Amino acid sequence: MPSSCPDRTFEDKVMEIRFLSWIVGPTDSRATEPERFVPATVPGAVQLDWAAAEHWIPPERSRHLNVRYAERGVPILVDYEWMEDKYWLYRTQLDVDPLSPGHRLYFVASVDYRCEIRVGGQVIHAQEGMFTPIKLDLTDQAAPGTILEVLVFPAPKTHQDPVDEKQAMQSCKPAVSYGWDFHPRLIPLGIWDGGHLEVRSGCHVSAADIFYEMNDSFTHADVRLEVTLSEATAGTLKWVLSSPHGATVFEREAAVAGTRCHFFAAVDSPELWWPNGQGNPSLYRSTVELFDETGEQLDNCRSSIGFRRVRLVPHAFSWQDPDNARFPNSRNKPPITLEVNGRVVFAKGSNWVNPDIFPGRTTAERYKPLLTAARDANFNLLRCWGGAPVPKDGFFDLCDELGLMIWQEFPLACGKYEGTAAYLRVLDQESQSIIRRLRSRACLAIWCGGNELFNSWSRMTDQDLALRLLNRNAFDLDPGRPFLMTSPLMGWAHGGYQFRLGDGSEVFQYFSKARNTAYTEFGVPGPAGVDLLQNLLPPKELFPAKPRTHWQHRHAFRAWDASPDSWLELACIEQYFGKPVTLEQLVEWGHWLQCEGLRFVFEEARRQKPVCSMALSWCFNEPWPSAANNSIISWPAEPKPALAAVGKSLRPMLASARVPKFSWTTGEVFTAELFLLNDGPDPIAPGSVEAWLFNSGGFQEQFFSWNHPGAAANTNVAGPTASITLPKLAPGPLRLLLRVPGQSEWESEYNLLARG
Amino acid sequence: MPSSCPDRTFEDKVMEIRFLSWIVGPTDSRATEPERFVPATVPGAVQLDWAAAEHWIPPERSRHLNVRYAERGVPILVDYEWMEDKYWLYRTQLDVDPLSPGHRLYFVASVDYRCEIRVGGQVIHAQEGMFTPIKLDLTDQAAPGTILEVLVFPAPKTHQDPVDEKQAMQSCKPAVSYGWDFHPRLIPLGIWDGGHLEVRSGCHVSAADIFYEMNDSFTHADVRLEVTLSEATAGTLKWVLSSPHGATVFEREAAVAGTRCHFFAAVDSPELWWPNGQGNPSLYRSTVELFDETGEQLDNCRSSIGFRRVRLVPHAFSWQDPDNARFPNSRNKPPITLEVNGRVVFAKGSNWVNPDIFPGRTTAERYKPLLTAARDANFNLLRCWGGAPVPKDGFFDLCDELGLMIWQEFPLACGKYEGTAAYLRVLDQESQSIIRRLRSRACLAIWCGGNELFNSWSRMTDQDLALRLLNRNAFDLDPGRPFLMTSPLMGWAHGGYQFRLGDGSEVFQYFSKARNTAYTEFGVPGPAGVDLLQNLLPPKELFPAKPRTHWQHRHAFRAWDASPDSWLELACIEQYFGKPVTLEQLVEWGHWLQCEGLRFVFEEARRQKPVCSMALSWCFNEPWPSAANNSIISWPAEPKPALAAVGKSLRPMLASARVPKFSWTTGEVFTAELFLLNDGPDPIAPGSVEAWLFNSGGFQEQFFSWNHPGAAANTNVAGPTASITLPKLAPGPLRLLLRVPGQSEWESEYNLLARG
Repeated sequence: MPSSCPDRTFEDKVMEIRFLSWIVGPTDSRATEPERFVPATVPGAVQLDWAAAEHWIPPERSRHLNVRYAERGVPILVDYEWMEDKYWLYRTQLDVDPLSPGHRLYFVASVDYRCEIRVGGQVIHAQEGMFTPIKLDLTDQAAPGTILEVLVFPAPKTHQDPVDEKQAMQSCKPAVSYGWDFHPRLIPLGIWDGGHLEVRSGCHVSAADIFYEMNDSFTHADVRLEVTLSEATAGTLKWVLSSPHGATVFEREAAVAGTRCHFFAAVDSPELWWPNGQGNPSLYRSTVELFDETGEQLDNCRSSIGFRRVRLVPHAFSWQDPDNARFPNSRNKPPITLEVNGRVVFAKGSNWVNPDIFPGRTTAERYKPLLTAARDANFNLLRCWGGAPVPKDGFFDLCDELGLMIWQEFPLACGKYEGTAAYLRVLDQESQSIIRRLRSRACLAIWCGGNELFNSWSRMTDQDLALRLLNRNAFDLDPGRPFLMTSPLMGWAHGGYQFRLGDGSEVFQYFSKARNTAYTEFGVPGPAGVDLLQNLLPPKELFPAKPRTHWQHRHAFRAWDASPDSWLELACIEQYFGKPVTLEQLVEWGHWLQCEGLRFVFEEARRQKPVCSMALSWCFNEPWPSAANNSIISWPAEPKPALAAVGKSLRPMLASARVPKFSWTTGEVFTAELFLLNDGPDPIAPGSVEAWLFNSGGFQEQFFSWNHPGAAANTNVAGPTASITLPKLAPGPLRLLLRVPGQSEWESEYNLLARG
Repeated sequence: MPSSCPDRTFEDKVMEIRFLSWIVGPTDSRATEPERFVPATVPGAVQLDWAAAEHWIPPERSRHLNVRYAERGVPILVDYEWMEDKYWLYRTQLDVDPLSPGHRLYFVASVDYRCEIRVGGQVIHAQEGMFTPIKLDLTDQAAPGTILEVLVFPAPKTHQDPVDEKQAMQSCKPAVSYGWDFHPRLIPLGIWDGGHLEVRSGCHVSAADIFYEMNDSFTHADVRLEVTLSEATAGTLKWVLSSPHGATVFEREAAVAGTRCHFFAAVDSPELWWPNGQGNPSLYRSTVELFDETGEQLDNCRSSIGFRRVRLVPHAFSWQDPDNARFPNSRNKPPITLEVNGRVVFAKGSNWVNPDIFPGRTTAERYKPLLTAARDANFNLLRCWGGAPVPKDGFFDLCDELGLMIWQEFPLACGKYEGTAAYLRVLDQESQSIIRRLRSRACLAIWCGGNELFNSWSRMTDQDLALRLLNRNAFDLDPGRPFLMTSPLMGWAHGGYQFRLGDGSEVFQYFSKARNTAYTEFGVPGPAGVDLLQNLLPPKELFPAKPRTHWQHRHAFRAWDASPDSWLELACIEQYFGKPVTLEQLVEWGHWLQCEGLRFVFEEARRQKPVCSMALSWCFNEPWPSAANNSIISWPAEPKPALAAVGKSLRPMLASARVPKFSWTTGEVFTAELFLLNDGPDPIAPGSVEAWLFNSGGFQEQFFSWNHPGAAANTNVAGPTASITLPKLAPGPLRLLLRVPGQSEWESEYNLLARG
């Protein structure tokens, strides 16, 4: 388990940051000067700079989107469409103060997506790929008046028509911005990270990787530090490891000769890093300091280490699968059960998508409320979906600290990424950069090749060279971490994405029949809140919700091929509740379905433990404000009611009921299969669960009591089926309450529907 | 597609072979001198040398085997058991004639399994792994009287008890010799290949790899030769490519500077290499010659190139699999359809096991009758099973020439090969050696990690480092060739291995219900022929066949956990035919079941095309003479009747019938679903098929005629079901004949059973 040295913070006394003033302008070719430059915010995106210069309201706030629809219903933001195919030239001047002796000047940037970098008109660097940081020594070129330019190439496209996400499939450009069922077509371009100068000692730490191995009882870790210096020196290196409480665990100091140096150390009884709900996410701190012969500090480098071991293991009954006991027999299903520090952990959480259309303006401050909400909702795993960019370091810093495990995908999604030489070269470079950057992370649990690559709409297979290359790179650079070619693999499932399928069956029915080892995507959509909708939609389009309005521009209608009213599910809402007469009613009913639908699936997946080991809803967040979406938190970080409902379903311990359907009528026999769910490290003592029903017509009854035997840690108890013949019901909520005497925090409440 | 330079032949004028006289003796430690030496045949095995010195009859011919049974029923050859745990010291003298100027002396050997090599008592080389050839420059050590020794270590074992194949599972020693259901426990050790001296020019060709890429229409190949020399020279290299008919395609000549040299060339309209049944296995010949400055030839190097492209692709209906069309949905099954030169080819053949207990005495002459029989039986694919050693070069030479595609597994089988650092180091070395040696082969179609690793008796998964390492090495060294982690994968099947399962169902029933994409192992056992049995079994044990006799020593009883009378299937024979009263009757009935059982499965797999793409029986050959076995050719190369029956089922075109069961009685309704099977590159013209039944009671009737519409190349025709109410039958054969007027070579005959 290696730990890389992350980028230095700007406060670092051994490094000086010099920001640059940039302008940017579009042009038609590499050789042509832009006709117009506008001021550029770096890091950022050319689209944002142009929009600011034109005084456009940015898309996330605009109530007057200029939209046309692509073939598959994706809204294309027309004002920005022409920008995709332009070259964009960034320009600044290297008017820097003289450097101290021994210091050097570096230009540091990450560019989305392909670029040339020119100094004084000469190309000094060319690169394709946004995930490989550029670091160029400009010491000898910097002089007053010297021009530094970054020429950004047009967005990569395999074809001009149709305008779809498949255009991205010979590149490592994340496909989501080419248009998705929750993302408008708007392809960001530009300097999306860095874009400044750094003054550093000529001799500094290029890489400091920490690797460790723990024994099987997790009581001892052998730790190794590998330092690479930018140039040979005759100084000394000092390495200090501090405990999560600040105590020094060890100090090592050694003379350096040459550019490489190894240190070895041991940590006894390390405090382990645990994911949320299983213990503390304890982090040790490493400091590496480089001194010259006079004892002056030339560089330092700080990073965190969480001691833990994460594996994917077969579930408890995997090898007894009756499918594999008879002839002719096939293979066992691939493992998808997370074992952390020797303990099986049910993985629960959601799919993380890009939190902004523009990765260049995403900061740690933007991640924080989202990730804190995930932690507070009892999540322990987020799947960073391959259609979106790999997040920045601030994301992983927070996940390390919050105990949120990460499933990180490479930038492949929903397509056939042919293994041409040109594509494999970029994928090799980009995947190596991603792995080297993130392999130090305690939070990083799983590498995955990308999204839905083995499904009929993608048609990749285990033989595809792109995926074999990713497996190769993950094995070579980070062998201790599980690698999956794609999601779903055999035995797991993606979908559905609505409260009801096309055949009318509800999540209540088809998930209770499913028998998957992991549900790595499933969704129930819900509308945005009333306030957000009022800010987002033109007043005259606000109600009733209709296609071909801003409701559709923001994904409420025709966003998803399979259903004309996704993600609003208006027909479904009307079928259960009747036609809404106010916006408030529409939103309330949409939220009701999303809350109860997601609760059902999350709890059903947990009820299917240990055969099922994972439940990740689609999706957690969103890249811009949607009118309706499968997200449970609106852009930028506005929780929908479903976030709290999901959080309750993911409590470590709770009473749970498998109810066969959502809506009920007078005289029907109501049933509820009772369970106590326990995903935590503590046992459940024997006790009882009471089942109550409430209806607005005055009906209120405890109709069942179950004396349960308790359960071991991390083990569910399946109980009996409670039933009652329903009395005369008034139309409205039918509330099922599971009370747990003496353990009110395990109590659960389900808001079903009484139709009278 | 690279083509390595294979070992030179001994006639090569630029190389002189000097054979050595060896003795060998056992000892208890590395430091102890053996108490007794015996003459050694090299290459060979220490067990054979000891047996010869003791005048023992070798196991393949002995009628008096000294056997005890391991826990799981494997016969342990007791006389050889003590040899497993000894060190064995080979010794010879380097009394070589003086070398010509510029020549050097190399010791060349492959050692099974771990060794130290000593010259004059000094260890000059140590190695674990039998698949990495050893080549040591002894020029400076050779002098009259100098002692050369090869110390072979005891057989690798992870544990002493139980005595089972799992002992091999931290090594790259093929597991089969640790005891299998068709292989006695006898673990060969010793110098198994080479073991001689080579006198060569000090500057010679170390490696000459040919790589090529073809365009998508297979009309053009870009060819690249990469030569590495043993030392820098200022001579010239000449490269000649000859066509399959001996014409020169091109000649290249260039001065060499340094130790590496690249040549580029192109071949237009290459004659393609086709597997058996699809066209000619055309082979081009490459000759690389190295000359010194005076024009004297220093070295040469010949190899074959077959231009072809082999891929694994999804079958024709793969992406329409209804399992993947509903929510929640999982991934598509992994592809197992072979596409050769753009043409889908149904893969048919068998599993190849080691043709001898002792790989050291296997020669090209031993391979030839076996592989010729496979070609003549219409095979196009052999799976070289991972439990057995990777064959020698002579095997692949023949497969290249005969058009037999090879599925080559690495030496892992039926176990959990833990990814310890020590094991991965050896696996890395051995797998690289295997890949570099074989990647040039036109015949080599598929790499595979090993046998049944994802089943409950092995418990490896996609996450195992050993398999990720193999995928890495195959990707790095031979990316153009498909790689599979193991067999079976999802959708394919292994088993059953008998005419009837434990529940009484016949292959007729359970294979017609199965829906697999590939049947990569299935078997129906049969006894050896009468002559072989008479030579093999002590006369007094010959009949009746009984457990705990040489019948059992040679796998007729209790060889396989699942059944007490496998591989003889005596109870099954008696149930259909009654108690045999002679050896001849027992053998005839056993062969009858094997012929009809295997015919059924092979044809059923073909009838399930295109969803099913592959049928490979278990197994083709055997490592020593068995009394009964799933093999269809007895040791060393004696066909059982099933070989001819299988060959008929694998004709490119034939009439075929799906009959629901084997035995029939008077008055039953007999049914036969009719098909025309076509795996060849030619279409079938419209015509007719007649169904006839014959019974020894005098019954003979054409009961059905089908006018079929013909079919395109490589396409089956499914016909109607012929049926007849059976008249009074006499006990004995019930023969179903499918006649094809005008195409008698497509005619098929099934020997079913009438019980009266």
